[in-house]
Amino acid sequence: MPQGMQPVRGMRDFVPPAARTRQQVASLVLEVYESYGFEPIETPALEDLATLTGGGAGENEKLIFKVLRRGAKLQEALAKGYDVADAGLRFDLTVPLARFVSNHLHELPMPFKAAHIAPVWRAERPQRGRYREFTQCDIDIIGEPSVAAEVELISAGLEALGKLGLDGCTLRLSDRRLLRQAVEEHLGPVGDPYPVYVALDRLGSTPAEEVVKELSGYGEEKARALVSWVGAADLDRAAALNGAQLEVVADLRTTLSALQQQGYRARFDPTLVRGIGYYTGQIFEVSHPSVGYSLAGGGRYDSMTARFGGPALPMCGFSIGFERVVELIGTGRFTGSKPRVAVLCSGQQELLACLARCRDLRNSQPGATYSVLRRARNAKRQRADLERLGYTHIQDASSFLAQ
Amino acid sequence: MPQGMQPVRGMRDFVPPAARTRQQVASLVLEVYESYGFEPIETPALEDLATLTGGGAGENEKLIFKVLRRGAKLQEALAKGYDVADAGLRFDLTVPLARFVSNHLHELPMPFKAAHIAPVWRAERPQRGRYREFTQCDIDIIGEPSVAAEVELISAGLEALGKLGLDGCTLRLSDRRLLRQAVEEHLGPVGDPYPVYVALDRLGSTPAEEVVKELSGYGEEKARALVSWVGAADLDRAAALNGAQLEVVADLRTTLSALQQQGYRARFDPTLVRGIGYYTGQIFEVSHPSVGYSLAGGGRYDSMTARFGGPALPMCGFSIGFERVVELIGTGRFTGSKPRVAVLCSGQQELLACLARCRDLRNSQPGATYSVLRRARNAKRQRADLERLGYTHIQDASSFLAQ
Repeated sequence: MPQGMQPVRGMRDFVPPAARTRQQVASLVLEVYESYGFEPIETPALEDLATLTGGGAGENEKLIFKVLRRGAKLQEALAKGYDVADAGLRFDLTVPLARFVSNHLHELPMPFKAAHIAPVWRAERPQRGRYREFTQCDIDIIGEPSVAAEVELISAGLEALGKLGLDGCTLRLSDRRLLRQAVEEHLGPVGDPYPVYVALDRLGSTPAEEVVKELSGYGEEKARALVSWVGAADLDRAAALNGAQLEVVADLRTTLSALQQQGYRARFDPTLVRGIGYYTGQIFEVSHPSVGYSLAGGGRYDSMTARFGGPALPMCGFSIGFERVVELIGTGRFTGSKPRVAVLCSGQQELLACLARCRDLRNSQPGATYSVLRRARNAKRQRADLERLGYTHIQDASSFLAQ
Repeated sequence: MPQGMQPVRGMRDFVPPAARTRQQVASLVLEVYESYGFEPIETPALEDLATLTGGGAGENEKLIFKVLRRGAKLQEALAKGYDVADAGLRFDLTVPLARFVSNHLHELPMPFKAAHIAPVWRAERPQRGRYREFTQCDIDIIGEPSVAAEVELISAGLEALGKLGLDGCTLRLSDRRLLRQAVEEHLGPVGDPYPVYVALDRLGSTPAEEVVKELSGYGEEKARALVSWVGAADLDRAAALNGAQLEVVADLRTTLSALQQQGYRARFDPTLVRGIGYYTGQIFEVSHPSVGYSLAGGGRYDSMTARFGGPALPMCGFSIGFERVVELIGTGRFTGSKPRVAVLCSGQQELLACLARCRDLRNSQPGATYSVLRRARNAKRQRADLERLGYTHIQDASSFLAQ
């Protein structure tokens, strides 16, 4: 019996020219990031389970694809009732980065600016536009305590999006500390504020009254006051919070004005929450007028290194949603201007003669593509396929060799 | 308690500038492959276990990192005694390619020339130079029955190695059908010849007498005659085998002469076996004078698509051992000639001013790097780190801003 031919559920194959577009997008983004001095790093796809669950990532930790122990260790785990898995596929690039920085502290420059473009895996319920394997494009600055890090990350990210033709983005900005202050001022001390954040995060997509209901355990009046504050706050109201976090507000103004001076749209948005547990300072998201979801986001997550035995370093990151960006751009966008020539042959002898000839032509035309192919039985379909792949010239071997 | 900071056993982090070199090597190889008309494709890191074990890959199937089922399906598997794993990390790119081609037959041009550069995973015992996660650089031609496929793949591969500075490679060539004929002629009908291939594969590294001993189950005299034939055969002796595979020998001559005409070193080597089960025709390996192992290899594996429900297509592939090539080349080889400027700042205000200034400079000097960084306490180390990363200019913010 033949095996199935589908990819694993929720994961995707990329046929030409989609895979080429993906690589061109990644190259373009990396080129911008490298021009800012971000250095590429690589970490393994697998991490020990203790690492993956040790970064404070919250909900994402429930979505780990776990990898079975092997050989004698699997037998031992089964016999003694240990966890049969010892590792898992990373669900983001931030937790592995914190482990990486802790591990290589003495080999890395400090401050360190990292670029990390790689796939991650999450065992989410597959649905339209949500995949179980997807690429993230992260940049992070480790060791810079001031909002100069935020400004640089956001500037580099918006520039990369602009180079991809995604101009006109808006940066929405908030700060976890401000949010925490607002929560405690309205609800009283809440211990772990994370469930409140998760509820507030729905304010964009859910009617405010439902969010109030969800938070009514804290008292309906209090919940309504919080929701109303979050929905209407500007930086002046934020500065007027009890325990007034004037530095936090000043930093928000600094980030916004530095971005605005570069011509970017940037605004304070107190409804911005971001669903991840580990943020400690400014948080941000990038939206584009043509779509309802955000294209990129990030924030400050100081001291995550301390969870992996490293010192408590300032850390801040920006992540482009690669899949969303690629979908928005569409396939075949960056085909380039170099000639792409296909030469169609009738058999081995012509193929070999054309291969030799193309070698010389490639050497004299850097960047050109010369593809030698056997002529297909369905000539019309072959031509259509080659045109779809961006071939600008389709020639017969006989006329090609006679040139 | 802090978590461990090491990567998973047998896998590696890549700190700068190693990761940059890896990306440059991959880009350079892909650039050559694209100039031949190979189209990038992507497949998921995970495949169903039935796919991974359905390709006839032999020993490698024992090295799969298996992924646990999730949720209710895991509970069901545990309760009913099914396999608790349903998927695994790919151990090569060939089996996923055959599944991919079967799945997308109607979206792909035919013949189809694919380039596939991606990591694979094998749960081998970690040792020096052998890793559990490593990158493969594959090109494959699907739908070309003649050795024009072999010639094109090997030419493109040797050209890519040459662009990386690895000139002077030697191509060793044989054919599985010839080997099978030689085995049957000397040992008689053997049923599955694969164990004999595995024994003969050791001829390079093991004394011939030991290989004879290993094969003595077939009769010591017969085994000795086979080992002696394999050790001494040239193409004339090959042509004189019973059941003379004259076409096979003629094809070997064609491949060799096409490569030699391009100036490559290429020779018939009957001791070449390659340890993978699925080959059906010509097989080849590339060695470099500076190292004892091969840098690349491949062969024909016709009809693997039929195992995944597709038609029985001609298939042939060439794979560069990316890790070996990168190690041989060394780090920092392709740093380029563009200026790399680091600007050292004393605080947020200088950082923001320099970020704005660098933005203008980057726009006027495409390809240049301008990295703005806070000055480290250990100035000497910071300078050394930046020089190691290829920075050509290291400037103080004050003089930079005064320019």
